[in-house]
Amino acid sequence: MITLTDIEAAHDRIRPHIHRTAVLTNRTINTLARADLHFKCENFQKIGAFKARGGLNAVLQLTAEQLKNGVTTHSSGNHAQAIAYAARQVGTRAYIVMPRTAPQVKKDAVRGYGAEVIECEPTLDAREEGVRKIMERTGAELVHPFDDDRVIAGQATAAKELLEDAGPFDVLLAPVGGGGLLSGTALAVHYLSPQTRVVAGEPEGAADAVLSFRSGKVEKAPFVNTIADGLLTTLSDRTLAIIREHVADILTVSDPEIVAAMRLIWERMKIVIEPSCAVPLAAVLKHKDHFAGQRLGLILTGGNVDLGKLPF
Amino acid sequence: MITLTDIEAAHDRIRPHIHRTAVLTNRTINTLARADLHFKCENFQKIGAFKARGGLNAVLQLTAEQLKNGVTTHSSGNHAQAIAYAARQVGTRAYIVMPRTAPQVKKDAVRGYGAEVIECEPTLDAREEGVRKIMERTGAELVHPFDDDRVIAGQATAAKELLEDAGPFDVLLAPVGGGGLLSGTALAVHYLSPQTRVVAGEPEGAADAVLSFRSGKVEKAPFVNTIADGLLTTLSDRTLAIIREHVADILTVSDPEIVAAMRLIWERMKIVIEPSCAVPLAAVLKHKDHFAGQRLGLILTGGNVDLGKLPF
Repeated sequence: MITLTDIEAAHDRIRPHIHRTAVLTNRTINTLARADLHFKCENFQKIGAFKARGGLNAVLQLTAEQLKNGVTTHSSGNHAQAIAYAARQVGTRAYIVMPRTAPQVKKDAVRGYGAEVIECEPTLDAREEGVRKIMERTGAELVHPFDDDRVIAGQATAAKELLEDAGPFDVLLAPVGGGGLLSGTALAVHYLSPQTRVVAGEPEGAADAVLSFRSGKVEKAPFVNTIADGLLTTLSDRTLAIIREHVADILTVSDPEIVAAMRLIWERMKIVIEPSCAVPLAAVLKHKDHFAGQRLGLILTGGNVDLGKLPF
Repeated sequence: MITLTDIEAAHDRIRPHIHRTAVLTNRTINTLARADLHFKCENFQKIGAFKARGGLNAVLQLTAEQLKNGVTTHSSGNHAQAIAYAARQVGTRAYIVMPRTAPQVKKDAVRGYGAEVIECEPTLDAREEGVRKIMERTGAELVHPFDDDRVIAGQATAAKELLEDAGPFDVLLAPVGGGGLLSGTALAVHYLSPQTRVVAGEPEGAADAVLSFRSGKVEKAPFVNTIADGLLTTLSDRTLAIIREHVADILTVSDPEIVAAMRLIWERMKIVIEPSCAVPLAAVLKHKDHFAGQRLGLILTGGNVDLGKLPF
């Protein structure tokens, strides 16, 4: 049970290591959406994504004894950089298991924070086996990307800042992958702005959370095929329980809708965001009548894109 | 002779219509450049570029009599949007002569501000002839993109804000095309921070300003072939005189150097900028020993790019 005190303590703990990112608005997008949108720009966060928050909140709570042998995780994306960055901040080693198919630029970024990259086959089994071997060999502490209360409390600080800097909101929106950000967001809103509804956006091409949300148990997506490569993971029992209790709805959007929303943000707001970030705006634009006239907060989760592979 | 009072009056005049844009820093870029860089983000300005400043300062000084018949200019780029936007702010018509080869998205943007777009052949003669005809037909007032003291005083307000918000600097850098921004920047620095050196960046593929700067008369580029499509114009006698008096140096950079600097800003700062914007950073990275250890201000001029035609 993550409390308000946990979220506040997380915020105090990570504050020296993160940016308090800007909240931006855009008149053209407001006109298009017929609503009042406020974007929390976690693409400007350390390591280029909100994941720095959860990673830091977990690593900063490890004892000297636990830190002695370093930290480890498996990730092809932003959590890898988050743990590498957090490890550097506390002066310990990080061992990051990454699929060999991950973009070279992401492997280089993780190494740039001083972490050791261990490549594996691009399957979940191979990734988990890789981490198990690292833990046996080194004694490193595992930090899971989302199935961890410390990580969830850390991610909750993004919504906390958004509420403090630009609230109150009628609706707060976040994308959903493994549910770390969404469950943290839902808890922050539950404690700090209970009249605000939390709505998630999910790609049609990774539509597991919407199924789990309805059935009450962790479901797999019927198929996985989406440009929103940060949202491929399924929920855990932990994140699903929080989401079922505190999230109002999960809306799905197609890849063309995601790309159109992403392009709108790039062209009009002049900022670089990942496809996964555009999912909540795509949901707002798809369901205009649902959100018209309301005051909306949207978390833009990250800006780590491969500029050589843009969908435009 | 543009005075400090002119620049201060310009700032007071346009302030209700513009954004005071953010000044951003980036640790990775500082490390690469071995200097302390501060980026003035005019890509976040109204119409997506600093040109809103000069256009507004000119149009807001027109009398009711002059405004009666509207305003006109020729431009394929940001000045077109600036005049269209300024005209809408004062409630008059704008007639913008644009080469028929200008991207559809730019024509649409100008029309989006309520202006009438008149297409012409893509030559300077045809553009000037187009404006002449408009002036005869409608009596509209011409606002030149840079050969105009009101426009130069307006552009000077970007450097004024940068000095106020993040100064003092050892060096302030801006790109040079027609010289409106550079001459305004040089004057603002001359009055407000005379110990700061002003250095310009220019593409090798439009290297007219560096020749004019040396010879003292307006020269044409030996050839024109660059991705920095906002910097193709030659100086005027007016801008050259100011630049010769108040600018320390003009450094040229190649297109690969411009694209590398542009990519660095997109990837590391997560912001969308035009190729022209990247020219000063490219100059800093090309001449690291020249700028090492210094405190630098760089004006990022705009973010209006065609996402379908990126150089990555």
